[in-house]
Amino acid sequence: MSENYSQMWTELGLNLKSHEKLLDVLGQAYRDIFLAQKNRPEGMQYFDFVMSEIHGLRVKELLDAKKHDRIVVGAFCTFVPEELILAVDGICIGLCTGAEYGFDEAEKYLPRNTCALIKSIFGFKLGKVCPYIESVDLLVGENTCDGKKKAYEILGTLHDKLYIMDMPQMKSDDGRNLLKAEYKKFQTKLEAISKKKINSENLKKSIKIVNNKRKAVQRLNMLRTAEPTPISGLDALLINQVYFYDDPIRYTNAVNKICDELENRIANNVGVFPEKTPRILISGCPMAVPNWKIPMIVENAHAVIVGEESCIGERGTQNLVDDSKDSVAELLEGIVDRYFKIDCAIFTPNPSRLDHILHMAKDYKADGVLHYCLQFCQPYQIESGIVENALEDVNIPVLRINTDYSQEDTGQIRTRVEAFIERISS
Amino acid sequence: MSENYSQMWTELGLNLKSHEKLLDVLGQAYRDIFLAQKNRPEGMQYFDFVMSEIHGLRVKELLDAKKHDRIVVGAFCTFVPEELILAVDGICIGLCTGAEYGFDEAEKYLPRNTCALIKSIFGFKLGKVCPYIESVDLLVGENTCDGKKKAYEILGTLHDKLYIMDMPQMKSDDGRNLLKAEYKKFQTKLEAISKKKINSENLKKSIKIVNNKRKAVQRLNMLRTAEPTPISGLDALLINQVYFYDDPIRYTNAVNKICDELENRIANNVGVFPEKTPRILISGCPMAVPNWKIPMIVENAHAVIVGEESCIGERGTQNLVDDSKDSVAELLEGIVDRYFKIDCAIFTPNPSRLDHILHMAKDYKADGVLHYCLQFCQPYQIESGIVENALEDVNIPVLRINTDYSQEDTGQIRTRVEAFIERISS
Repeated sequence: MSENYSQMWTELGLNLKSHEKLLDVLGQAYRDIFLAQKNRPEGMQYFDFVMSEIHGLRVKELLDAKKHDRIVVGAFCTFVPEELILAVDGICIGLCTGAEYGFDEAEKYLPRNTCALIKSIFGFKLGKVCPYIESVDLLVGENTCDGKKKAYEILGTLHDKLYIMDMPQMKSDDGRNLLKAEYKKFQTKLEAISKKKINSENLKKSIKIVNNKRKAVQRLNMLRTAEPTPISGLDALLINQVYFYDDPIRYTNAVNKICDELENRIANNVGVFPEKTPRILISGCPMAVPNWKIPMIVENAHAVIVGEESCIGERGTQNLVDDSKDSVAELLEGIVDRYFKIDCAIFTPNPSRLDHILHMAKDYKADGVLHYCLQFCQPYQIESGIVENALEDVNIPVLRINTDYSQEDTGQIRTRVEAFIERISS
Repeated sequence: MSENYSQMWTELGLNLKSHEKLLDVLGQAYRDIFLAQKNRPEGMQYFDFVMSEIHGLRVKELLDAKKHDRIVVGAFCTFVPEELILAVDGICIGLCTGAEYGFDEAEKYLPRNTCALIKSIFGFKLGKVCPYIESVDLLVGENTCDGKKKAYEILGTLHDKLYIMDMPQMKSDDGRNLLKAEYKKFQTKLEAISKKKINSENLKKSIKIVNNKRKAVQRLNMLRTAEPTPISGLDALLINQVYFYDDPIRYTNAVNKICDELENRIANNVGVFPEKTPRILISGCPMAVPNWKIPMIVENAHAVIVGEESCIGERGTQNLVDDSKDSVAELLEGIVDRYFKIDCAIFTPNPSRLDHILHMAKDYKADGVLHYCLQFCQPYQIESGIVENALEDVNIPVLRINTDYSQEDTGQIRTRVEAFIERISS
């Protein structure tokens, strides 16, 4: 960290001692997992810097923005429309939910068989180690899965800025109406707390900013179809993770810059791994910072991850919002259209996700699919059988991994992953 | 069973051998648990008979009705409005989901950490031992919890009559609109398959029938407030379970008849257990036939269950539909109003459930509340902490039990229940 942020963290109410320990562990993990990689693109230096300052400089930026009357909105889900937040000159931050931290405390509030992602929200809050959750003017919970929906009732007793966004469960007309009504309520809420009005001009501008961010990531994804692949799955995942934290314009520039570099690599047939390295598509639950366990195992076992069918990945970044219209109402329709296409397993049925996985497996020339589930995540766990059947019908090998954030099953998973790589290589 | 139904079961496609074994086990359990009780009201003979013929005579009645062009609709949830089914002269059957049957087969389709109730649906279907699920013209699945919602996608590949009813997650205006839209779609579906139209006359008549059924059970509940209580919790639960199977008018008469008897008992100060027997309110997940494990443990430990805050219990039978209006549209509004009040844990937030539990604990003079959860039922498990806090705030002792349908933890639960009874008796 380039500066001493102790005062800032103290003012945010963090537990400095616990927080320092956490940063030490994460810093070491980052060095071991990311910095130890070979053949990294130079453009990753930007993301390394962002990560090194993730609890420092970026938080300072947020607090500075707040001093200039900008609001900071925290979110746990890709269904929260960043466009509306930017339109009131707010900042949208995806809150990290990827570490086994404070689970003992979390389990005083939640059943043990709650997924690690939800326990992580509570662990970070209760342990007072997340500067973001302490900085927000609004914390958006969404009724996606049962676990989150019910856990937010309890989180509301621990955090006074919690706002609940309802969610549909089916992609019907009534479902779309419900989502649209919720986005309108969200607009009203944002306007109230920011004291700024959404108009067609600021909304259109915001839509373009977020579209450009998505286009940059989509460009990155396209480059990963190359053989040999010019970037590791770990680094690509990191870029997808930083998507939720960074200033969107600065981020877009950084992603486009690394894409220029990757295009050069491809033109020169330079890969990050040797040619013929087995190519794996990851599909399933999101991997939030610092949940790097499975990609680390896969790439240490000499396969490469070529795509993420995940909320932190293509499920979250595919599809743009129509920015061609001129009224707030029409632009909002475009936003609803775009977000309503997200094929999260909370929807029933969810056939477009199957189509997407099949397309991704083909486009990224995947030799196999690793379906990743958090334990006790019922939507993705139940859907994993459906996914497996759809992939096996077209002879794409599938490995289903159910795990949590602990390291205890690393050895067992490594054995299964190595066997899977062996199988798809032969 | 008074008749040989082998031919009927064969024609329904049941596996006769497995089915016979199942009936043997259930018959033995019924004798051990229900018939072995002392001081049972005479009126229970009717329910004993219904249970003895539950796969026989009642199924024959359904098949006879089908021959006379009446439809049979199967449901898994109290959100399915029986009034609409009766209005097209149909029969509504709550499908039994209370036994650990065929779980090995079920787990080929569902994750192991799916709740026992959902596995039971699959086990009965895959094992070909449920005459009801094989008899229905329509099988209604509802998007209540994640487990059911996603499991129905798979059940649809095993049962060709499955119909999905969407559900709201919040008690907002938009939530109510969604439920109303679903009930209208359901009306259209029922009219299509029954070839009968719902009009104000048949709907009003149906509402009265179901209201009368509810009133009879509510009357039974009221009588359980007496000290000493005139009926065991096991028998009262059984009456609540038969609610979902029996002809509604016949059932209503039988419940009212036993209520007459219980009123006499109360007048003569006759109880089923000695005076001062500790009184326990059960709250939580539904206990479907033949899930009698917890009440058996409680009442064998010399406490009495005085009420069930459960879908198979007061959560499912409280509140009547307004039958004073004269148009189909108005009557439907009344139906939506009534069902939208059901305080299932799938709703967020769900404060009326807390109010209801507190009221029940007071009305039934409960010495303690046993909160019962099926393992992996996230909505009720997460809500159980909220319930416990609300009860402890007013000094009502709570015992939280998480279990499934197996008998393996019976000893452990018995020990905890006995300690709890000891605690609330002193």
